[in-house]
Amino acid sequence: MDYTESLKAFPMLQGISDEDLKFLSSLVKPGNTVAGRDIIKEGDSGSEMYILTKGSVDIIKTTVYGDPFVVATLDASMHCVFGEMAMIDNDKRSATVRAKTDCSTLSIDRRQFDEFCDSRPSSGVKLLRLIGVNLVRNIRAENNNLRLVYQALIEEIEKN
Amino acid sequence: MDYTESLKAFPMLQGISDEDLKFLSSLVKPGNTVAGRDIIKEGDSGSEMYILTKGSVDIIKTTVYGDPFVVATLDASMHCVFGEMAMIDNDKRSATVRAKTDCSTLSIDRRQFDEFCDSRPSSGVKLLRLIGVNLVRNIRAENNNLRLVYQALIEEIEKN
Repeated sequence: MDYTESLKAFPMLQGISDEDLKFLSSLVKPGNTVAGRDIIKEGDSGSEMYILTKGSVDIIKTTVYGDPFVVATLDASMHCVFGEMAMIDNDKRSATVRAKTDCSTLSIDRRQFDEFCDSRPSSGVKLLRLIGVNLVRNIRAENNNLRLVYQALIEEIEKN
Repeated sequence: MDYTESLKAFPMLQGISDEDLKFLSSLVKPGNTVAGRDIIKEGDSGSEMYILTKGSVDIIKTTVYGDPFVVATLDASMHCVFGEMAMIDNDKRSATVRAKTDCSTLSIDRRQFDEFCDSRPSSGVKLLRLIGVNLVRNIRAENNNLRLVYQALIEEIEKN
């Protein structure tokens, strides 16, 4: 299957030539997940990055008490990717990603992603830059969350 | 000046050819900061990434109450970089970096970094990958901090 047209819609793949997108298309793997099933499980190993092409997913984390909470909901119309952290550093999944509706994805694993970047380095640089921007956005959001929870903690301590 | 030998010591620049390191050396800018002075100020604009080649620095953040606190101390022997977030996404500095001792740095700004990655894309891919690994490490550390502060908040609420 040729996924070039699907891939073109993703801002993260902007600026990549049609020829390189065609090569990327040959490396990605399509997948379907029914509503309620997990695409990624927090704590698992895994090295695939996913592009959501149909449906919506909940990003779910677990508190220290084992309670799950939804930190974000992504819809295919947002043209988001997920799973890029473990693809980059080969470590555990930091969150569960659960299909909220029936979903379709395209995924690429670390080995194939490296193959793409190494054989098409000009496109690799563009893609890695945009993944970097995404990661920095996540750090800034986490910084902000940490600041808010810290503030709530101080206020709670002062109440006592 | 040729900084190729200094650059070679940095794990982030591993795997980059001597020729490309030589080119990178021609793009970096040396700097010296006396103890107590800020190299980067939280909230400022700025697009340079720094390599610490001598001395040590404190990474300082400000709470919502305006209180500064040291989140990390980096020493030249650790071969760390700092300032990479604003270089990547062109947004505000997320922390202050203050010279703890007299410091020497090599810096590269966004424009020169892009020039390096675009003209030496194979090395650019290697460098951006390692910056990505660094960023993911930061997200994982922030996740952990958030979890701990959240736990402390819940315990404090339960006390009341």
